[in-house]
Amino acid sequence: MSSDVLLSLSQKALQLLQEDADKIEKLIEVQMENLTTRKCPLYEEVLDTQIYGLSREIDFAIRAELVQETAGKQILVKLERNLAALYEAMSQNKE
Amino acid sequence: MSSDVLLSLSQKALQLLQEDADKIEKLIEVQMENLTTRKCPLYEEVLDTQIYGLSREIDFAIRAELVQETAGKQILVKLERNLAALYEAMSQNKE
Repeated sequence: MSSDVLLSLSQKALQLLQEDADKIEKLIEVQMENLTTRKCPLYEEVLDTQIYGLSREIDFAIRAELVQETAGKQILVKLERNLAALYEAMSQNKE
Repeated sequence: MSSDVLLSLSQKALQLLQEDADKIEKLIEVQMENLTTRKCPLYEEVLDTQIYGLSREIDFAIRAELVQETAGKQILVKLERNLAALYEAMSQNKE
């Protein structure tokens, strides 16, 4: 019984973190699509802030032993990869 | 048994959040003590960032149903009150 509770709490925690990551993912996609049409200088700052917030959530979930370190870090790694691709595309667009 | 697991997870979560709040509290105290001797213009930004990070952790813990909303918000309210006192003291010190 106790492991069932733990499992469901862990699943819920991972799901919440993934939802937050998906929101940031969407922000990145929107900016990718609008690369040539319009630019918002605050976008970078908003993305950085959101990713920092998510990294704190993930760090907390790992420390609270709700989420395994690898699973938590994986969410961030994927986001950061996409963010790097956005910045790359933005800088090519500038040239 | 299952409620024991939940209770211990909740207690651990609250303890982690309180530890993070205490670290910010210490930053505020240090700045209070150094009010007349030296000023660091980045202090305000560091405090804001730290409090934002903590607010995201607390929000996550509430959504994951690890921590009650009132208990979580209480930690932030107390910190923000101390931060307001610091800014008040800083502005009086400027006059």
